[in-house]
Amino acid sequence: MSQLRKDPISGRWVIIAGERSKRPDDFRKAAADRPPEAPGFCPFCPGNETKTPPEVFALRPEATPADAPGWQVRVVPNKFPALSRGGTAPRKGEDLFVWMDGVGVHEVVIETPDHAQEMSDLPLDRLRDVLWTYRERIVSIGKEKQYRYIQVFKNKGREAGASLSHPHTQIVATPIVPKRVKEEIYGAERLWDKNNECVFCRILRQEVERDERIILRNEHFCVLAPYASRFPFEMRVYPVRHSARFADITEEELRSLAATMKTALSRLKNALSDPPYNFLIHQAPNARMILNGGRIVSVDRSYHWHIEIIPVLTKVAGFEWGTGFYINPVSPEIAAQNLSSDAPSAS
Amino acid sequence: MSQLRKDPISGRWVIIAGERSKRPDDFRKAAADRPPEAPGFCPFCPGNETKTPPEVFALRPEATPADAPGWQVRVVPNKFPALSRGGTAPRKGEDLFVWMDGVGVHEVVIETPDHAQEMSDLPLDRLRDVLWTYRERIVSIGKEKQYRYIQVFKNKGREAGASLSHPHTQIVATPIVPKRVKEEIYGAERLWDKNNECVFCRILRQEVERDERIILRNEHFCVLAPYASRFPFEMRVYPVRHSARFADITEEELRSLAATMKTALSRLKNALSDPPYNFLIHQAPNARMILNGGRIVSVDRSYHWHIEIIPVLTKVAGFEWGTGFYINPVSPEIAAQNLSSDAPSAS
Repeated sequence: MSQLRKDPISGRWVIIAGERSKRPDDFRKAAADRPPEAPGFCPFCPGNETKTPPEVFALRPEATPADAPGWQVRVVPNKFPALSRGGTAPRKGEDLFVWMDGVGVHEVVIETPDHAQEMSDLPLDRLRDVLWTYRERIVSIGKEKQYRYIQVFKNKGREAGASLSHPHTQIVATPIVPKRVKEEIYGAERLWDKNNECVFCRILRQEVERDERIILRNEHFCVLAPYASRFPFEMRVYPVRHSARFADITEEELRSLAATMKTALSRLKNALSDPPYNFLIHQAPNARMILNGGRIVSVDRSYHWHIEIIPVLTKVAGFEWGTGFYINPVSPEIAAQNLSSDAPSAS
Repeated sequence: MSQLRKDPISGRWVIIAGERSKRPDDFRKAAADRPPEAPGFCPFCPGNETKTPPEVFALRPEATPADAPGWQVRVVPNKFPALSRGGTAPRKGEDLFVWMDGVGVHEVVIETPDHAQEMSDLPLDRLRDVLWTYRERIVSIGKEKQYRYIQVFKNKGREAGASLSHPHTQIVATPIVPKRVKEEIYGAERLWDKNNECVFCRILRQEVERDERIILRNEHFCVLAPYASRFPFEMRVYPVRHSARFADITEEELRSLAATMKTALSRLKNALSDPPYNFLIHQAPNARMILNGGRIVSVDRSYHWHIEIIPVLTKVAGFEWGTGFYINPVSPEIAAQNLSSDAPSAS
């Protein structure tokens, strides 16, 4: 089992080693130059179901047995989990050296049986099923109250951190609410107090008025290039209806989100020649109440779930690590211009 | 000139575009596959001095003119600066859309005239001269009080963000104290209040007692694998003497730091087959006083300058972007074992 450790000065938690433990040789250049997987074998392809841990969920015809071909979407525990199921995770250690057992959940959503079918290639009904699977797992894992946050994320392409190329998404449930999520929650709560309005709803309204950074918009979703984008061609997908939790999505919204994601990811692929990317869902914590300096934060009022899509086009370097600032060589206004229509940008 | 923009929710600043502005075509796959520079030409090599902006500082024989060969270390403004010199940088905009002009300094320290001589290859005297040059620039830029923080950092290797391979370090002065620095300062101040002792001094003492994560130690410096390391084989270099500011380093310490850095970087190169890396100096802000919620923070008492060395061996992916957690597949204890002697690790 891995270990969660807290940095005594910044308060930042890290997950150390566990099943993913590596030796220096694993990082030598030869290793870095190897292809991410031996060609010809993929543990996520139909027929190889026994090469993954047993499935915890699948969309498959009723006649087909578990862990056999026939599925459309399949969810399995990660074979090399960052966090593992267990009891509670009390804090141990003291003073400078605080840690807890790496208790949590780490699952993989295999999005399609077709190795070569990217998310942007999926028919809308099938993409809706993938998003519905996210929702199912969030609801199911969310019943286990020791997991305080559920992070859904996708790494596409080796540069974006994917070790397998078969289209998949990951779900990690953590025993504490992560720092970055807390920062957003505290910021949103502070701005609710100031404006008596959800800041995300406010951003949406003002961005639509200004119309400089809108990438696409429909009845249920709005895709923006954020005002303070950290990365070139970063996109953020917001539901129009105020909602703190992805799990509260309606069927109509789910179908609309499938169409929105398909368009956004297709434009990214088209404009930037199929770049590696990450996306992640930011939602309210599984814990209904969280504390900020002794005060209860009303997350459902002030938070607004959204998806961040981050193309991997630049490197995070010394300046970013030192300062937490990002240097973005493409303004979000230029990014929005290039991503706001289906036509390829003029070269 | 670039623009600094503030994220309304997290308070994070980003630097947008400016001289580094790029078009989508610059990110297409073909561009990514190009070598970082045309072979055979390097603007940092002797003889090409006119290909950089005019030097602002150099270690060179008195008889040689500026911007001509003969130098040992040469400092020039960055040709594509993230921030540019200018007057003050008042905040503009309002509510959700706050920004300021990208006022600051962005310089390049060319560490050696020899294109192929890495920092770990430099003779000790020459490495001391590079570190002394950092100090000179910090002191000089620090006189301009509108620059509130000075970040010294090095990106080695393309994966670490270097666009030119000739050994160089960068210095960026920013008009605000960066978020990550503030977090450390506030954390250190909070722990000073609790312990009546600098937390970095406390960490050093306890790490030496435990002797699990010490990589190397001498009279003036201690190199650790930090308890909550974010990255495999991350190292942190601390001066033994409490000091908040790199510029206060003594000549004896400077020489010791040269030896310490040479050993640390050589071991990294040896153990991990010459990996790309970033390093950065964290020091107290140029501003002598900073505020934390209306309270003046006594930075010089509670802060302790140090160098973070980050080998680039893993990818930052969706989980890290979403949570701010890092997953580190190598425990710092294993890292310290592998980096605490000059012998190559057994394969």
